[in-house]
Amino acid sequence: MLPERTLRKEVIEEFKKLDVPSISDAMDKLKLSGALYHIKAVVPDTYVCGQAFTVHYIPNGTIKGTVGDFIDDILPGEVAVIDNNGRDDCTVWGDIMSIYASQHGIAGTVIDGVCRDINVIRQLKYPIFTKGTYMVTGKDRVTVDKVGGTVSIAGVQVNPGDLVCGDNTGVIVVPFEHAEEVLAVAKQIETVEQQILQKVRSGMKLKDARKQTGYHTLQTPDSEQ
Amino acid sequence: MLPERTLRKEVIEEFKKLDVPSISDAMDKLKLSGALYHIKAVVPDTYVCGQAFTVHYIPNGTIKGTVGDFIDDILPGEVAVIDNNGRDDCTVWGDIMSIYASQHGIAGTVIDGVCRDINVIRQLKYPIFTKGTYMVTGKDRVTVDKVGGTVSIAGVQVNPGDLVCGDNTGVIVVPFEHAEEVLAVAKQIETVEQQILQKVRSGMKLKDARKQTGYHTLQTPDSEQ
Amino acid sequence: MLPERTLRKEVIEEFKKLDVPSISDAMDKLKLSGALYHIKAVVPDTYVCGQAFTVHYIPNGTIKGTVGDFIDDILPGEVAVIDNNGRDDCTVWGDIMSIYASQHGIAGTVIDGVCRDINVIRQLKYPIFTKGTYMVTGKDRVTVDKVGGTVSIAGVQVNPGDLVCGDNTGVIVVPFEHAEEVLAVAKQIETVEQQILQKVRSGMKLKDARKQTGYHTLQTPDSEQ
Repeated sequence: MLPERTLRKEVIEEFKKLDVPSISDAMDKLKLSGALYHIKAVVPDTYVCGQAFTVHYIPNGTIKGTVGDFIDDILPGEVAVIDNNGRDDCTVWGDIMSIYASQHGIAGTVIDGVCRDINVIRQLKYPIFTKGTYMVTGKDRVTVDKVGGTVSIAGVQVNPGDLVCGDNTGVIVVPFEHAEEVLAVAKQIETVEQQILQKVRSGMKLKDARKQTGYHTLQTPDSEQ
Repeated sequence: MLPERTLRKEVIEEFKKLDVPSISDAMDKLKLSGALYHIKAVVPDTYVCGQAFTVHYIPNGTIKGTVGDFIDDILPGEVAVIDNNGRDDCTVWGDIMSIYASQHGIAGTVIDGVCRDINVIRQLKYPIFTKGTYMVTGKDRVTVDKVGGTVSIAGVQVNPGDLVCGDNTGVIVVPFEHAEEVLAVAKQIETVEQQILQKVRSGMKLKDARKQTGYHTLQTPDSEQ
Repeated sequence: MLPERTLRKEVIEEFKKLDVPSISDAMDKLKLSGALYHIKAVVPDTYVCGQAFTVHYIPNGTIKGTVGDFIDDILPGEVAVIDNNGRDDCTVWGDIMSIYASQHGIAGTVIDGVCRDINVIRQLKYPIFTKGTYMVTGKDRVTVDKVGGTVSIAGVQVNPGDLVCGDNTGVIVVPFEHAEEVLAVAKQIETVEQQILQKVRSGMKLKDARKQTGYHTLQTPDSEQ
């Protein structure tokens, strides 16, 4: 990752305390979109939060490159973000890569496509988010076209260094340029959410809890459900 | 719920002992249909059985209402049945509503659409059945149009007070008017099933067990597999 | 199963040690295809490996037969492979069949279609691989047309005695005629995979581990990811 696109460590640590819906609400409030449609956790209760290391695959043709060797260049804490054009008929991630990634502190993987070797992935509880699973290899079917460029994941533009956060609800991408701004708003949203929850837990009606915290009328952060 | 559409408590208690496939077979036998296509449990091994409290959402437009405040009006034991037109791009249920519902004895939620905050929902083991999960809020995208009216869930008409039963296999809706009739037939079906199972467990061939219980030839309840 | 299509017991035992992706890679290498698209384990961490016992269903019409009675004829260790034309609106497998199959040593079930009674299937941890789950019975909707013929499962031709292997990643069918050949290649592939893994675990870069084992350049088995 380019040094000028490195987020401050504290920013990432703060994001790790947020859940994906709160980040989504903050993005909404800032008129940003980054929700990855139909990308799901392969292993329940896994979690990812880190800056994107992007990879683009193309179908094999006159150009044939390699598959997977890029993994040596991913820094600890980064997330492998792989654009395989949404294909669910051949995989670009499997057991050796999962083992390697776990061992080297790679934060996780997000694929616009599918992965395999789910037995190993489940054992490792490796955080990987995809369109599903299949067993057919991408080798001799697709090839790495570019590493570190702009990619498309489920219709969202992702650039190296963008922040990628995923949990049981799904995955969202926060543009590098807006990360600190999104963080500030998301933290406000979680504060209001906690206030509503506290009132609700003490027996207040939801309608009243929302009214007291300005859910429907004020322009304060307000997208809890 | 209207008092005249309240099922006897014993009826609901009896339904709770049945699994969804047996109810489906009884509906079949009575030429009724209520199976919700592609609606699934968000958390494995959760279960719902209760009368419907219906809510209808529409996309935001010139009319903009609220989201979620209806929850205060759901009675303990009822099931929130939310028609969001099958949309899977914005949610109408999340963490605060799940916590509130658990706390107030709401039996569960069924959505023709999606929900979010799956971390919390999994921790609570809250019984919610949807078309999937996403993180983008419905707030400022959809609005409650009507509470307590007739709704469409996965192509099935649902009215307030209809009985909604869901388990690992899926969700089925029993019209209020037919609940007692469906119950009687479903209980007969389970009795025959248990007879077949007992014979099979004692070593009898399935073909013979079915013959002895009249599976293929008689008009008795017979849809076990 | 016809005696002339019975695999040697040792062959099946050896296949049981392989995971589905390795078998897929061996099939690839031999220009064979047998991956079942969109067929998934109903219960996580279940596994199937055995020869196919095939069943074909057709929609009810002027011909109406039975459902499920074929189960008495499946031999221990065989896999029920049921072609219901990919239908996900009615089921051809449920609780009694799962209990019967578990009791009689049937290895598992693969359906181009859906099953029901997931509560029981989960309790049994019965290995069943389908397009999903639903509660509506196939009884009076579909009927067994042929047992022991050639069937289509997710677009793949399956014949009685073909080897069917399924795990968390998915299901693959190895034609009876090629089973020993596929086994030999798959074992070679797993050997190379283990070599790469050992090097990676001892700290070698993936690129170098692949180079030393001939992953990109040689014609040796090479489809690990």
